[in-house]
Amino acid sequence: MPGDKRSAFLDLPTAQTGASGRADSPPSALERWLLAKLFGLMGQPAIRFVLWDQSTVGPEGANEAVSGLHIPSRRVLWRLLRNPGLNFGDDYSAGLLMIEGELRDFLEAVYGAGGGSPRSGPLGRYAVNRPTWRRPNSLSGSKRNIHHHYDLGNHFYRLWLDADMVYTCAYFPQPQDDLETAQRAKMDLICRKLRLRPGELVIEAGCGWGSLALYMARHYGVRVRAYNISREQLAFARDRAHEQGLDGRVEFIEADYREIGEDAARRGPCDVFVSVGMLEHVGRAHHRGFGGVIDRCLSASGRGLIHSISQPEPRPVNPWLERRIFPGGYPPTLREMAAILEPRRCVVTDVENLRLHYAKTLEHWLARFEDHAKQIAATYDESFVRAWRLYLTASIANFTTNALQLYQITFSRVAQCEVPWTRADLYS
Amino acid sequence: MPGDKRSAFLDLPTAQTGASGRADSPPSALERWLLAKLFGLMGQPAIRFVLWDQSTVGPEGANEAVSGLHIPSRRVLWRLLRNPGLNFGDDYSAGLLMIEGELRDFLEAVYGAGGGSPRSGPLGRYAVNRPTWRRPNSLSGSKRNIHHHYDLGNHFYRLWLDADMVYTCAYFPQPQDDLETAQRAKMDLICRKLRLRPGELVIEAGCGWGSLALYMARHYGVRVRAYNISREQLAFARDRAHEQGLDGRVEFIEADYREIGEDAARRGPCDVFVSVGMLEHVGRAHHRGFGGVIDRCLSASGRGLIHSISQPEPRPVNPWLERRIFPGGYPPTLREMAAILEPRRCVVTDVENLRLHYAKTLEHWLARFEDHAKQIAATYDESFVRAWRLYLTASIANFTTNALQLYQITFSRVAQCEVPWTRADLYS
Repeated sequence: MPGDKRSAFLDLPTAQTGASGRADSPPSALERWLLAKLFGLMGQPAIRFVLWDQSTVGPEGANEAVSGLHIPSRRVLWRLLRNPGLNFGDDYSAGLLMIEGELRDFLEAVYGAGGGSPRSGPLGRYAVNRPTWRRPNSLSGSKRNIHHHYDLGNHFYRLWLDADMVYTCAYFPQPQDDLETAQRAKMDLICRKLRLRPGELVIEAGCGWGSLALYMARHYGVRVRAYNISREQLAFARDRAHEQGLDGRVEFIEADYREIGEDAARRGPCDVFVSVGMLEHVGRAHHRGFGGVIDRCLSASGRGLIHSISQPEPRPVNPWLERRIFPGGYPPTLREMAAILEPRRCVVTDVENLRLHYAKTLEHWLARFEDHAKQIAATYDESFVRAWRLYLTASIANFTTNALQLYQITFSRVAQCEVPWTRADLYS
Repeated sequence: MPGDKRSAFLDLPTAQTGASGRADSPPSALERWLLAKLFGLMGQPAIRFVLWDQSTVGPEGANEAVSGLHIPSRRVLWRLLRNPGLNFGDDYSAGLLMIEGELRDFLEAVYGAGGGSPRSGPLGRYAVNRPTWRRPNSLSGSKRNIHHHYDLGNHFYRLWLDADMVYTCAYFPQPQDDLETAQRAKMDLICRKLRLRPGELVIEAGCGWGSLALYMARHYGVRVRAYNISREQLAFARDRAHEQGLDGRVEFIEADYREIGEDAARRGPCDVFVSVGMLEHVGRAHHRGFGGVIDRCLSASGRGLIHSISQPEPRPVNPWLERRIFPGGYPPTLREMAAILEPRRCVVTDVENLRLHYAKTLEHWLARFEDHAKQIAATYDESFVRAWRLYLTASIANFTTNALQLYQITFSRVAQCEVPWTRADLYS
């Protein structure tokens, strides 16, 4: 409908009524049956669908205490039935679909029911994870994909990240710790797990705004070569290194992680390899290559740590998340992470699952995001705010319901036999 | 040679000289070349071969500071060349091959060089891991295999295990702790990782002499169904349960782990699944079935722990170890362990690598074993003592050189969202 406010972000028409402008006739028996079918494929979560005539589809005896998804028109219903994985997100962002109750409760109920997993059968998988065109992580594809998310503008992330601009799971020694404390605690935990020694050379694959690289150099006296392909992030990181007088010890390099191996072949291997929150962007097809990078850049007695979102079983990323938020993303399973290291003369020395810490981190981000929602809507638009609200809340719900994990995997070369006696020193 | 003392255990002739009784002629150029080839396939370890004419094969400039393997005759040399993986162990046990220097140093040098791994190429693999007939882990095969090792007699194991008869890796909070302390610390660590609550039902697959089952019931108030197929172990375990007044809460069941699933289907699922030192005996072909057992016996919100020897990459077990000591054994890789849980709605919550603790445990066992070597030789024979000395020392060397790991993998059902906030409580 020309003249309507359209979402620049999602480019969706916003029709609350049928194309003719008249209210839709009540849902047919077929439509209700199809919705009930979708509900079954979702694993029968404790939610209900509320249709435009106020009739509902959901579990027996569901009442208003259960979160509801309000479907305002026949057109939105059919969009949802056709491709729930993509269109739920798009139509929520466009303001077409509305949640009655708390969005988080709704999403936790949905994810907790575990629909769309390989166990829900081929039809369930198809309905919930219907294939969409995905963004390949070729060298140029990765650049586009990373640009899509990380180059939204440093000012945007500064509104809701911590002061150090760390955009990965924090570590809260106590649940009530503030975000700044928790991000520093995470960086320090990683340094302790890696047992960094002054003068060692660390390679960091995917360094974000540079916080960890600078932290390692400042507090543990190491030299760091940190790689990233996001220009906005790198410019910010280099400024910080200069301000902190660390530009002699921390080098921020604009290069894809696949170029690290060649760089190391030219300039020598590192003692320590670390990658925090990058493996999720590598993509399944490139896991093997990622292992090859570690193998080429890590010394024969080196050690390392990979920090990544993970999922309990291999399943495709939700198409909305993949298309709108994180193009090219894929959280590997623990088995897939182990398979990256196994052929590379690397032995896992420790695995920690920090998923509750990611839920807590996201709660902090979401609260700060909401504090600036008006400002963000003014820069982007309302649908952008709704999309990011959905993304952050859905991430919380994924971590609280065990649909996602956050693993820190510490490893060493087989030839590296020095390991700490116990893990007690991490907690002393 | 009739009249010679022959090894009942290994059934090998003991020829120090050629069959004719005359001393062998010096090694030929071909023999020295083949031995050098074997040395290369072993990854050129820092050892030397000393032949019957006192000539040596080994790294350039190797002297007597390097451990040597004394090869006393042409016949023993050719046995070693033909099947080093099997015949090294057999001929060492028979007293035909002798080590100059410390056996442990020799073995650490060999394992540290990493020969015979998939990376050493097909010829290296063939030479070091030459296939031998392996013992299948069918229901009857497992019974035979377990009988071979665990029914040697409780009196034998009592000579060198701790007072509680725990025949798995201990946990030494401090390296200087004694073995009894460390075995109890291990059992308590497992209970804390499992967060046992009074009244819960635990299923233990492979319970040895029953120590952990009794410890859990006594100190954490749980009920335990513990399974084993070794009769000698079960008789011992039941006596202890009765003595300790725990026979009402701990049930020792003579059944293969594959029968646990059906038993649970009949009698109800458990809250907690635990298996310590059994997965190594399951065998690669049965990993999937082992996962199925966990799936069938564990409640939808249950949790569990698997404690197993592991190796950095999939490779066949040394044929001597497989044939003489642990028929049917195979230490899975971490990837293979993760693959057991991944399709079973189970999520890994923690992985700890305790390999140094296994080396320490084995040092205690070996020291106690040596204290009783004469007594053991009198019951069995000298070659049995040498074979077990080799097995215990080789195990130490495997763990110190990173050729083997010991993983404790803690997991929970996907639907079990309650996990501890951090691991700090394990160390407080």
